[in-house]
Amino acid sequence: MKIIRTLLLGAAITTFGTAQGAEVERIEPPFWWAGMQANTLQLMVYGDDIGSTDSVVIDSAGVSVTQLHTADSPNYLFVDLKLDDSLTAKPVTLKFYADQQQVADAQYSFKARHVNSAQRKGFSAQDVIYLITPDRFANGDLNNDEVKGLREGIDRQAPGGRHGGDIAGVIQHLDYLADMGFTQLWLNPVLENAQAEYSYHGYSTTDFYRVDPRMGSNKLYVSLSDQAADKGMGLIKDIILNHCGSGHWWMDDLPFTDWINYNASFSPTSHRRESLRDPHAAEVDKQEFNDGWFVPTMPDLNQRNRFMARYLIQNSIWWVEYAGLSGIRVDTYSYPDKTFLTGWSRAVMAEYPNLNIVGEEWSENSAIVAYWQEGKKTFDGYQSFTPSMMDFPWQRALLNSLNNEESWGEGMVQMYQALSNDFLYADPYNLVIFPDNHDMSRIYTSLNENYEHWKMAMIMTLTLRGIPQIYYGTEILMTNPGTDDHGVIRTDFPGGWPGDRVNAFNAEGLTEQQAKAQEFLKFWLNWRKTSTAVTQGKLMHYAPRDSVYVYFRYTDSDTVMVVINHSDSPQSVDPQIFEQRLAGFTKAHHVESEQITTLSQALQSRAQSVSVYELQ
Amino acid sequence: MKIIRTLLLGAAITTFGTAQGAEVERIEPPFWWAGMQANTLQLMVYGDDIGSTDSVVIDSAGVSVTQLHTADSPNYLFVDLKLDDSLTAKPVTLKFYADQQQVADAQYSFKARHVNSAQRKGFSAQDVIYLITPDRFANGDLNNDEVKGLREGIDRQAPGGRHGGDIAGVIQHLDYLADMGFTQLWLNPVLENAQAEYSYHGYSTTDFYRVDPRMGSNKLYVSLSDQAADKGMGLIKDIILNHCGSGHWWMDDLPFTDWINYNASFSPTSHRRESLRDPHAAEVDKQEFNDGWFVPTMPDLNQRNRFMARYLIQNSIWWVEYAGLSGIRVDTYSYPDKTFLTGWSRAVMAEYPNLNIVGEEWSENSAIVAYWQEGKKTFDGYQSFTPSMMDFPWQRALLNSLNNEESWGEGMVQMYQALSNDFLYADPYNLVIFPDNHDMSRIYTSLNENYEHWKMAMIMTLTLRGIPQIYYGTEILMTNPGTDDHGVIRTDFPGGWPGDRVNAFNAEGLTEQQAKAQEFLKFWLNWRKTSTAVTQGKLMHYAPRDSVYVYFRYTDSDTVMVVINHSDSPQSVDPQIFEQRLAGFTKAHHVESEQITTLSQALQSRAQSVSVYELQ
Repeated sequence: MKIIRTLLLGAAITTFGTAQGAEVERIEPPFWWAGMQANTLQLMVYGDDIGSTDSVVIDSAGVSVTQLHTADSPNYLFVDLKLDDSLTAKPVTLKFYADQQQVADAQYSFKARHVNSAQRKGFSAQDVIYLITPDRFANGDLNNDEVKGLREGIDRQAPGGRHGGDIAGVIQHLDYLADMGFTQLWLNPVLENAQAEYSYHGYSTTDFYRVDPRMGSNKLYVSLSDQAADKGMGLIKDIILNHCGSGHWWMDDLPFTDWINYNASFSPTSHRRESLRDPHAAEVDKQEFNDGWFVPTMPDLNQRNRFMARYLIQNSIWWVEYAGLSGIRVDTYSYPDKTFLTGWSRAVMAEYPNLNIVGEEWSENSAIVAYWQEGKKTFDGYQSFTPSMMDFPWQRALLNSLNNEESWGEGMVQMYQALSNDFLYADPYNLVIFPDNHDMSRIYTSLNENYEHWKMAMIMTLTLRGIPQIYYGTEILMTNPGTDDHGVIRTDFPGGWPGDRVNAFNAEGLTEQQAKAQEFLKFWLNWRKTSTAVTQGKLMHYAPRDSVYVYFRYTDSDTVMVVINHSDSPQSVDPQIFEQRLAGFTKAHHVESEQITTLSQALQSRAQSVSVYELQ
Repeated sequence: MKIIRTLLLGAAITTFGTAQGAEVERIEPPFWWAGMQANTLQLMVYGDDIGSTDSVVIDSAGVSVTQLHTADSPNYLFVDLKLDDSLTAKPVTLKFYADQQQVADAQYSFKARHVNSAQRKGFSAQDVIYLITPDRFANGDLNNDEVKGLREGIDRQAPGGRHGGDIAGVIQHLDYLADMGFTQLWLNPVLENAQAEYSYHGYSTTDFYRVDPRMGSNKLYVSLSDQAADKGMGLIKDIILNHCGSGHWWMDDLPFTDWINYNASFSPTSHRRESLRDPHAAEVDKQEFNDGWFVPTMPDLNQRNRFMARYLIQNSIWWVEYAGLSGIRVDTYSYPDKTFLTGWSRAVMAEYPNLNIVGEEWSENSAIVAYWQEGKKTFDGYQSFTPSMMDFPWQRALLNSLNNEESWGEGMVQMYQALSNDFLYADPYNLVIFPDNHDMSRIYTSLNENYEHWKMAMIMTLTLRGIPQIYYGTEILMTNPGTDDHGVIRTDFPGGWPGDRVNAFNAEGLTEQQAKAQEFLKFWLNWRKTSTAVTQGKLMHYAPRDSVYVYFRYTDSDTVMVVINHSDSPQSVDPQIFEQRLAGFTKAHHVESEQITTLSQALQSRAQSVSVYELQ
């Protein structure tokens, strides 16, 4: 068993063919940085019989080995390092000994951090996030559509197949995205998914330190981050702490018997997230929720194993540092062990105090979502350090408010009620709001292709409290008529493939409606950047009256008023009702038409219309 | 204007016909007690020009006048008294002076408290509450159906008319209620409603110290309380702090211009209770909610007026003391000023530390209901001293869980999810749960007259956490088919009127189904009394599996298991899942059939059935 796999990154490894048979095949993290806030690091060393090592020595200033941990498998060794403040960027050599004999060595390196790396600013309400499913956005490199050693090839006809989109495709269209007005990119996961099939979505990680070659490479991912930054856009990484893919390299030789939940054999999650807070919950329900697997191809990681916890924490920090990320989106946020989530979020935020992290807790219950946000005073004292959460209750309210007929309890009042639940959140302004995402019906489909309602949805997304996120293709009214098939929802973006008849990047071949929508979104995305009221201001909203929902965003110096008439008749809006916010202003500038209205008279609002005013 | 109205209770009043013209027509509270916890009392004295009084003297040990307050109307005087610990039960004389001349006097009395009055125990989870709409339950006294001076007479044909039911009718059927197994009676309001029409429901109080003569008298109300207590039943008073009736005696001569909200002219409430907690709320929305009126015949009281606040607090305490109440149900709980609600609940609970108070906050949002319960750590530091709330979210979940077809997100899981929100409450075990009430469709109608589901609803009401409340007539499957008309929902209880063809009190003329239902409820009400697991135990429930919802109530010594199969096929229930609660038990006693099952084998559960087991 002396197979030396290719080390993808970093260390050069020498193996001593000896009686002991120990060797180093892989070290993770593959390298690290000098000058990190945490002064320890734990290396996972993998190689034949490496667990038989009884000492590891690094003969270099600023770094020392403090402890070794063996695992259940003899082929793992966990090496605890102490990193002194004096540590500088440099290569070091790890020497492995057994019975006072050196059995292996490995090169390792500490790199120099970028200036201000620790102080990087994460995505915020000043941004708008563009969510991309990279396999479906643009095929920038035809040469990586099929890669030797990765089983699943390209099949553009299959909704669930790989379509060839990649990081190069995103890079090639950065100008389009910047011109549209987006300032953050969130890509669905791009790490290796060496699965037999259904790998395009990226949620079955088979190597936590390697970008999938069909997507590009680690270096190309860094290049995307750099080039996006040059155009004013941050990069958010989609991180999965809950599970890996069944094709993960460690699945054939697990370090510990408890590395994967349910003894590494499939047992489904109950998805009953309620159990975690439920004072009446049975232990078995909590266990089935947390430890159960999504599907047999997604082994569920046991974060209660402290080596696993450390592994995941370091992996997340590694990517932020390596790729210059502006933030993290955490997949299936509540499914990992909750004590681990506290430790994970605390550790990441300790390294990057101004970073942002947004968790996905797919619940329409604000009390459940709010539980996970940093600063929440929870009933049980639970503490999180994750600053943001995906606002699923808001998304449901968006659909309800627009799709339901106006009545006492339905229509715009449902958005009003959803936002009035903000008292549950530690910081509602730091929630991510979105009309849809990669797991949901397209917003235009959800709104029954009602364009006026789509415009309302876009304006609400861009002007209500929170951090807006728009899914790729929303700007050209992409749809999934008659099906919720994820492969259809994640249709290829037109123009992303050679030979595409329609090219949305330059509006060639778009329908008139699509082109109008694209211009609409571009206009408002760029207007939003100029509005401190929207990006930094508070929200005040009014209970809907006569099916008209009115809200304000405001700072001391800047006020924006949004009027949504969701009724089928024109409405006259009495400014007196809004005196608390209108006081001191005499005129309203209608942003789209540029007309000025005096506030001494009623505002006229067309049936099924949305108006944005800047107050003067 | 020297009309001396009849003082209904208490004080004899002498009026001095003098130049000053001052006189005492009414003092409220009409009497008080020695030995109360609070050592002050504020009398509202009403009479022509009484406000011109410049001093009031009580020449009696243990009580002294500390301050006088005039009002906007010259006909009111608020007299602050200090009550010393040495005060004993006795009559006293108040002498009113103006310019050093006595202008009036009035007898007042301090009564002796009942033994253990302060320590009385309020209703609790050990009880089951029977809710009665007194006009519709039984007409025990035909002589008070029409009363001179009260405009609305009897009209049994009109759904919204007075039907003649009264306190005497309740008294006459106390044996029935006790035999059924109820231990608390909550009557919709019985105070004077001297309104022109639509007065039967009792929610338009026109005298806060007088039982409506058509219902009986203050003395008869006390007799009801006493006789019920003799049969083991407590009496809960329905109290309205938010509004009075437009026929209230003070409406013609308000003490203060701010006594009634919106300058005593009708302006409707928005009913947007969300505004109270909403961090984005506009002041106008909070005001419209709190200060707006329900209807023009219900003037909205301004509890921010400190005399009004004091008046309402003393009135509530007066009734607890006077009528020996076991608790208070507060109508439209959140509509009065919230600062007042804190003061009101604090004052009442200070007098009766073991009393119970349940507030009506008709919201299906647990986070909103939970805000009002004593002990809740609220986001804004708001503090309530009201121990219990009506659990409207639970009621909605009950209907959803039974009426919806079983699926991933619907059916029994909706009860599971509702209860899992209990982390929001300071004390979920002290919430009042109910399948319906006087403002809702009858439970049997809501369940589409599905008798198996009705049985499940009854068992869930009687065995889940909380204090069960059953609306009169539920035991005989009363319905309101095809209408939500309140007058139909509140149909006359059969047997309560002379000549009724059907008499539910002795089951004469009931259909077979009705008689079965009555026996069913009687059986479980009486069984419940014997089950410490249900009345004092904790709840543990399990996420539904195969459409079967299983929960346990348990103490250290007593465990009850409830199995609800909401599917259309028999289900086999694996006891292993429930090991956390079944450990230590070997047998399950099926309460209804008295059959014993061993727990080593699967429990068999019929389609659409509910089973209650006592574990052995």
